[in-house]
Amino acid sequence: MKLDALVIAAHPDDAEISLGGTLLRLVDDGRAVGVVDLTRGEMGTRGTAADRDRETNAATRLLGLAARMNLGLPDGRVQVTVEAREALARVLREHRPDVVFAHHFDDLHPDHAACGRLAREAWYLAGLQRLAELDGGPPARRPRRLFHFMGHQPFTPTLVVDIDAVWERKVEVIRCYASQLEPAHEGDEGAHFLFGADVLARAETKARTYGEAIGCRYGEPLFHVGPLPATDPLLY
Amino acid sequence: MKLDALVIAAHPDDAEISLGGTLLRLVDDGRAVGVVDLTRGEMGTRGTAADRDRETNAATRLLGLAARMNLGLPDGRVQVTVEAREALARVLREHRPDVVFAHHFDDLHPDHAACGRLAREAWYLAGLQRLAELDGGPPARRPRRLFHFMGHQPFTPTLVVDIDAVWERKVEVIRCYASQLEPAHEGDEGAHFLFGADVLARAETKARTYGEAIGCRYGEPLFHVGPLPATDPLLY
Amino acid sequence: MKLDALVIAAHPDDAEISLGGTLLRLVDDGRAVGVVDLTRGEMGTRGTAADRDRETNAATRLLGLAARMNLGLPDGRVQVTVEAREALARVLREHRPDVVFAHHFDDLHPDHAACGRLAREAWYLAGLQRLAELDGGPPARRPRRLFHFMGHQPFTPTLVVDIDAVWERKVEVIRCYASQLEPAHEGDEGAHFLFGADVLARAETKARTYGEAIGCRYGEPLFHVGPLPATDPLLY
Amino acid sequence: MKLDALVIAAHPDDAEISLGGTLLRLVDDGRAVGVVDLTRGEMGTRGTAADRDRETNAATRLLGLAARMNLGLPDGRVQVTVEAREALARVLREHRPDVVFAHHFDDLHPDHAACGRLAREAWYLAGLQRLAELDGGPPARRPRRLFHFMGHQPFTPTLVVDIDAVWERKVEVIRCYASQLEPAHEGDEGAHFLFGADVLARAETKARTYGEAIGCRYGEPLFHVGPLPATDPLLY
Amino acid sequence: MKLDALVIAAHPDDAEISLGGTLLRLVDDGRAVGVVDLTRGEMGTRGTAADRDRETNAATRLLGLAARMNLGLPDGRVQVTVEAREALARVLREHRPDVVFAHHFDDLHPDHAACGRLAREAWYLAGLQRLAELDGGPPARRPRRLFHFMGHQPFTPTLVVDIDAVWERKVEVIRCYASQLEPAHEGDEGAHFLFGADVLARAETKARTYGEAIGCRYGEPLFHVGPLPATDPLLY
Amino acid sequence: MKLDALVIAAHPDDAEISLGGTLLRLVDDGRAVGVVDLTRGEMGTRGTAADRDRETNAATRLLGLAARMNLGLPDGRVQVTVEAREALARVLREHRPDVVFAHHFDDLHPDHAACGRLAREAWYLAGLQRLAELDGGPPARRPRRLFHFMGHQPFTPTLVVDIDAVWERKVEVIRCYASQLEPAHEGDEGAHFLFGADVLARAETKARTYGEAIGCRYGEPLFHVGPLPATDPLLY
Repeated sequence: MKLDALVIAAHPDDAEISLGGTLLRLVDDGRAVGVVDLTRGEMGTRGTAADRDRETNAATRLLGLAARMNLGLPDGRVQVTVEAREALARVLREHRPDVVFAHHFDDLHPDHAACGRLAREAWYLAGLQRLAELDGGPPARRPRRLFHFMGHQPFTPTLVVDIDAVWERKVEVIRCYASQLEPAHEGDEGAHFLFGADVLARAETKARTYGEAIGCRYGEPLFHVGPLPATDPLLY
Repeated sequence: MKLDALVIAAHPDDAEISLGGTLLRLVDDGRAVGVVDLTRGEMGTRGTAADRDRETNAATRLLGLAARMNLGLPDGRVQVTVEAREALARVLREHRPDVVFAHHFDDLHPDHAACGRLAREAWYLAGLQRLAELDGGPPARRPRRLFHFMGHQPFTPTLVVDIDAVWERKVEVIRCYASQLEPAHEGDEGAHFLFGADVLARAETKARTYGEAIGCRYGEPLFHVGPLPATDPLLY
Repeated sequence: MKLDALVIAAHPDDAEISLGGTLLRLVDDGRAVGVVDLTRGEMGTRGTAADRDRETNAATRLLGLAARMNLGLPDGRVQVTVEAREALARVLREHRPDVVFAHHFDDLHPDHAACGRLAREAWYLAGLQRLAELDGGPPARRPRRLFHFMGHQPFTPTLVVDIDAVWERKVEVIRCYASQLEPAHEGDEGAHFLFGADVLARAETKARTYGEAIGCRYGEPLFHVGPLPATDPLLY
Repeated sequence: MKLDALVIAAHPDDAEISLGGTLLRLVDDGRAVGVVDLTRGEMGTRGTAADRDRETNAATRLLGLAARMNLGLPDGRVQVTVEAREALARVLREHRPDVVFAHHFDDLHPDHAACGRLAREAWYLAGLQRLAELDGGPPARRPRRLFHFMGHQPFTPTLVVDIDAVWERKVEVIRCYASQLEPAHEGDEGAHFLFGADVLARAETKARTYGEAIGCRYGEPLFHVGPLPATDPLLY
Repeated sequence: MKLDALVIAAHPDDAEISLGGTLLRLVDDGRAVGVVDLTRGEMGTRGTAADRDRETNAATRLLGLAARMNLGLPDGRVQVTVEAREALARVLREHRPDVVFAHHFDDLHPDHAACGRLAREAWYLAGLQRLAELDGGPPARRPRRLFHFMGHQPFTPTLVVDIDAVWERKVEVIRCYASQLEPAHEGDEGAHFLFGADVLARAETKARTYGEAIGCRYGEPLFHVGPLPATDPLLY
Repeated sequence: MKLDALVIAAHPDDAEISLGGTLLRLVDDGRAVGVVDLTRGEMGTRGTAADRDRETNAATRLLGLAARMNLGLPDGRVQVTVEAREALARVLREHRPDVVFAHHFDDLHPDHAACGRLAREAWYLAGLQRLAELDGGPPARRPRRLFHFMGHQPFTPTLVVDIDAVWERKVEVIRCYASQLEPAHEGDEGAHFLFGADVLARAETKARTYGEAIGCRYGEPLFHVGPLPATDPLLY
């Protein structure tokens, strides 16, 4: 199935928390958008694997995604291997997205950083025809553009997506992951989260910070390696 | 007169050499585009002031500019003074451009660097109402966006404008400045130009370098401080 | 009068908005804290000079400052001159602060950037004995430490001050500047403020962003040039 | 055993050379300090494994360490594997240090760089409860702070620890590693050491350089990713 | 065989495209120069393995190389393993080059980046005597200098080699790789090449860009980690 | 008088402390080397103007300089004015040095930073023929190369000059400035010097640090904007 855009994220809920607004806007514009999660988040401190699957399904529906996939890599142990990156390259060749979004390659969570590197390598390799032939799948095709979204480590963004129009729906999408928003048990103070336990409050802080940077209320930051083509300097 | 875009350049021919393709594209799209030169280039090694005025007029016509102005600052001695930046802020309030292009603030030619700093300061100050009232001119208005173009010092661009469609016309625009393309006298080897005497060859090298960076043949690099709003990530 | 800490800010309210929490904490700890404003903010779009003086007095009392001074430089036209920096150096020699806080030297508002550069130069020069003798004032003394606070331009902070305990009082201090928080007239949409018109909302966003970065709720970022001495690595 | 601070180093003597002064100060202050070496340094050009064990024991006593451990990874072949980082995470959960010190992740010696990356990943993962349960050891606990010390590659330090009071004792600690300070055989000119063969002279140069940067005689540089909380700006 | 200089490149033709001019100049000066390719380029979209071997032989002769080797790693799957870096260290000990040139460690092609990292690690490890003994080959010896050449990702060069005198011969050397310069089949638009399909045009653009930066016509950029010794500042 | 190299320094003794070894090596090689001091150092805490003149003369002789000049700018008040930079450009046109050395443009002492900026601007302007004609002096000529030496602020050097052979003579040259090495009066603890009062100890620390970085004992760091031409990569 041909997708317009594909998100590559380490754990279910990463795509929603970091990029939910952008995805809503793309789907609202009639784009076919997919998400591939590398793991099932089975090492998360809160929620069971079954909880997370159910939550992911709900979020997927609310986002209106055209496809949600899972590579089945082990949570907490994502590695940048030849196998993983070629599996990801196959996803790119099969779904032919024009734009890919992935974690940034520098992040405090090792799975996030590994996801960002895997995405960069897979993005490049998806364009090599002999690798495609060796794999036996669809022909080579490199997505036109690869952006990185922000996880635990701040970066200076290249672009910020204005998500004012969809902010409240983004909050609803994050709320689908109810297991992540509540203490797992008495004594769970969210210490496993860096930077504080309140996922929604942190998402709002980040959205406000980057929104202000472009003069709107809520924004999602994107990073791009190398210059972008200016379609029309007066549009910005 | 309301302009859509305004270029602030140190010497006549700077706007053309660094940004001629972008200007042609904007005018082709029906935009009202102006250029304000800070000096008459009267200290240039080649050509007289009269030569340069005639050449500037020819280039202005070929570009199809809606306005060409000159601040009359001394060539080779542009300074970042309160007077100069307020004069520039007045130009911005009078012409109300949405987008401003200026030299980068870090450049080997002191006039270029001073131009870039003047433009940044004037851009900010143009938005202050009491300063506008003190000046007696039109009301405060800060252009929505300020980009920097590349002079003698390379930078990592934020955007590159694809100028494939207008490359040959850009060459013609630069050729208007015939006095700058020929030795001033026997023994003039263009040593006053850093990086080599052949203006057209250098413009082509630069256009090819930045064109390749976005996958076209000829490009003009732009630098922006801080993130840009993404109008649609799929457009890039 | 000997001060423990001195803030150097371009306009009344800059110290409060960027550093109010740190000042409250220092005063609560029994430190003698002063603020020197470079201008009276007379070019501000909102409020008259009389309004701003009254507001500044109220904020000064609420902060519990030991001294509030004004250098009387022209608002919107602060320049890095020998006179201004030597006047500032004299303030430093007279009040003998151990720590100085000033704007960052890279900021979108030209007055802020000029303030940051003036502070750096004055800080250095305050330590030169012959300059002190020439000036006729108290003997040379260079403050032990110079930090920069954040204005319009984000930077990567060296330190963040935890202001959770004083956050609500900081909001009250900012509210002293009522003229800045309301439209000056119908049609004033705060366009003269970069990044949005709501001063309090922006202060909260910034405080939350940097608070999260050190694991508290509200924080104020500081920048230091060069390494800091570690008093005890386990204290952080 | 609960430790206050833990050093993670690639080879015995790395902790002493790069951080001996800081360790002495911490132990003098009554802190429980441990060191875990990743390898036995068995590939070192000078000294046998037996020599190095004996020297390490002597240095450990002189430092007054509460614990010295060894992960038994192969010298010259330290890799960033899942196994190694989980073994390190287990050490962190068992000893519950509040502060961890490790090599910087960018260093010319591949083992040093791998050590810095392993430490960052283990530091993060030590906070994940399900990984702790899977491992069967003590519960999840992420050290409050992770600093990097300097090896072969200079960096701009965030903090410098003043070690004036313990400098001579640090020299004695380094001297415990006598095998490293003498040529292994005729013709050994220390070429395997980058930057010169005299370990003690280089340690002194580095200590003087970073001591000067904070205004003392001898210092040890530390690097921290992200801002540090300011306990009291007047303390620095 | 003792070499003066050795290039470590991912695929046959990488050394020629990025560094052909430097190699020609070194050979012209009577230096013994070698190239070790990590792979046979068997995953290249254009040309068969047999084509590429034949082309590599022709280019090797034209360059006048003293040695051309191949590590036989899998194209498209170069990894930074202990085995690969020790194999490379053995090549360095056997051929004793004084200067090594390798890909930069940050490049869009995963094989290029892996090559740059392998080269850095092998360069360091080649100086460790016990590793040499374990390997059973020639004694430890670390090349005096390691430079990185430019692939798909621009960097700010430390040095540029003036290749004006050999530019036309460099073009001939690249032309040896005829299979890479022509479409593999109808419909091959060179999409697998980032930045455009015309290898020769891109090589010329790059050579002109970096030539201009030092005031000649054609140049090849080199990157060095850390400062270089100035043999005589007046020579530059 | 034609010079091979010219140093531009803010105060007498700056050239000696930061670059004395390089100057000795150049003079030993038969080069004609000059120094132009911008001020007489009359604001220095230690020594009278007469002391400093006498000391400067002694150092000049010991260095074997072909010329020592003074621009007579006010110490502690060096500004980047059109007059100062054109006076400096005149010196460059008159003495026609091939290489210029100046302070870095980022330094804690305002005079040093101003000197670095003046030098960069004068270096560029010295190449403009009409400015030369306006001035009435010798024809335009831009020195081939401009390097920056290190003052109070560390930078990552591009080159390091090996000064092992002249280190002891450099110490003698610095000792010529006896007034700077001794307390001016009881109670003078050198607080006006950042980073400690012992000028010679600090010069030695710096020389050792940068010497180690290139594998010698004593070195002087140089910074260059943009790439340098590689005369022969095997020479390094």
